[in-house]
Amino acid sequence: MGWAIALHGAPATFHVLCRRSSASLVKPASATALTLASPLSKPISTPWMLSNSWVRFNVFRHDRDEASIMDGKTKKCGAVSGLSSVVNAVSLARLVMEKTPHIYLGFHGCEIADPYFITPENIIDYTQPIQKESNDADADAAVKIPNGDSQIGTVGCVAVDREGNLASATSTGGLVNKMEGRIGDSPIIGAGTYANISARSSLKEAAAYVIEQVPPSMAGLVAVSSTGEIAAVYNTAGMFRAFASEDGDSEIAIWDSPIKVSNYMPD
Amino acid sequence: MGWAIALHGAPATFHVLCRRSSASLVKPASATALTLASPLSKPISTPWMLSNSWVRFNVFRHDRDEASIMDGKTKKCGAVSGLSSVVNAVSLARLVMEKTPHIYLGFHGCEIADPYFITPENIIDYTQPIQKESNDADADAAVKIPNGDSQIGTVGCVAVDREGNLASATSTGGLVNKMEGRIGDSPIIGAGTYANISARSSLKEAAAYVIEQVPPSMAGLVAVSSTGEIAAVYNTAGMFRAFASEDGDSEIAIWDSPIKVSNYMPD
Repeated sequence: MGWAIALHGAPATFHVLCRRSSASLVKPASATALTLASPLSKPISTPWMLSNSWVRFNVFRHDRDEASIMDGKTKKCGAVSGLSSVVNAVSLARLVMEKTPHIYLGFHGCEIADPYFITPENIIDYTQPIQKESNDADADAAVKIPNGDSQIGTVGCVAVDREGNLASATSTGGLVNKMEGRIGDSPIIGAGTYANISARSSLKEAAAYVIEQVPPSMAGLVAVSSTGEIAAVYNTAGMFRAFASEDGDSEIAIWDSPIKVSNYMPD
Repeated sequence: MGWAIALHGAPATFHVLCRRSSASLVKPASATALTLASPLSKPISTPWMLSNSWVRFNVFRHDRDEASIMDGKTKKCGAVSGLSSVVNAVSLARLVMEKTPHIYLGFHGCEIADPYFITPENIIDYTQPIQKESNDADADAAVKIPNGDSQIGTVGCVAVDREGNLASATSTGGLVNKMEGRIGDSPIIGAGTYANISARSSLKEAAAYVIEQVPPSMAGLVAVSSTGEIAAVYNTAGMFRAFASEDGDSEIAIWDSPIKVSNYMPD
């Protein structure tokens, strides 16, 4: 079998995913699954596919990104939270996994320099929707957060290499207008990211089981198996997703259309 | 059935657990499981059973505590990381669960004031073992961290109330000499803490399954079922643990001795 990769993305990041999928993903023949999911050759301060180009300011107008990565062969994992100066959060999560005695570092413990994403344009882009929401007296804030399309968005990548090894990586800016210090599910191993070559159920069963545990309109996932199968399931109206494999198949989808790549497992 | 509660503790915190078990735990007849695990009446700045009285400085000599709590009936949960000014980390985790739109807050997002645990006595207590470890050229640092008795220690509590509702709470100072920003498993729902009244396997099977997944000498847990059973399993040499139930049974144990409380499920 050859390598295969699947991505999911938030609306605003997805065109970046798609544009890069042909350039970055089509020639990794000898790459390991881990490198497919997070190329260490990409420095952590240079934008890459899984960076959060779509900024999500918290209540203090800080951008606070987080990410995780897991190697399905060794079950080693790394995670980071509370980043404002690191562009490639996944690459930093990989450094935590490989270069520190810990799994998970947060906030000033893994920051580098000044906030990277705070620009005049970003502040204007995000001030307007936040003010609109604040003024919307009829809205139920508790309901709005999970369902607001403008508020959720996470990018993820799962990959299998020629050896059947798996890796998974997830990165997010979290919720718009979140509280300072909020940590979401994306950096949590077993919640936002998981990889394990010793699976006990089929890819299709595992993906369906996970999505059944989540309330409607709340979640989506991409998955690959060590035999090269690809799956994507979600309980939202749609999910931005892309697939590619070594045999040349590749596809991009948003809504509930049939996927034609040969190793895709339909729901 | 009546209420039941089980605790585990690190060596240095355990005498506090034991001393308080008779005072705090023997009269909660009408308390909910959540209140057994984390009484909200205890302010977050007043020491309580699940506070980390055993300080664990990181590399910068900061104490950074973390905790989580989960309600097994509603499956709501709360978690905090990176605390240095909050004594009752579990009570703060409960506030995050009940009073914020989020599940998990970290570092300056949930801090209150000046560091609480940094006292001259604590600095002396911890400087000596850290210096000794630094000088120990033969030791393998990677092996030492998980196995060093002086470095790991977490306190936890599981409770079931008269209605069969469950709650679980865990609190820790993490590893001695950890990197700034290090987040461990204790605040992670599903890793450090879990509660769910809709269990699909017996308490004994569930506890055994969890401990089988962990490398030797690495883990221990306490568990209760919604029918009032209590279990404690560990793959270390011993585990500080205490049990109490409404019928008056209570017991404290460290090593592998038979537990005599009537609702205890032996391995």
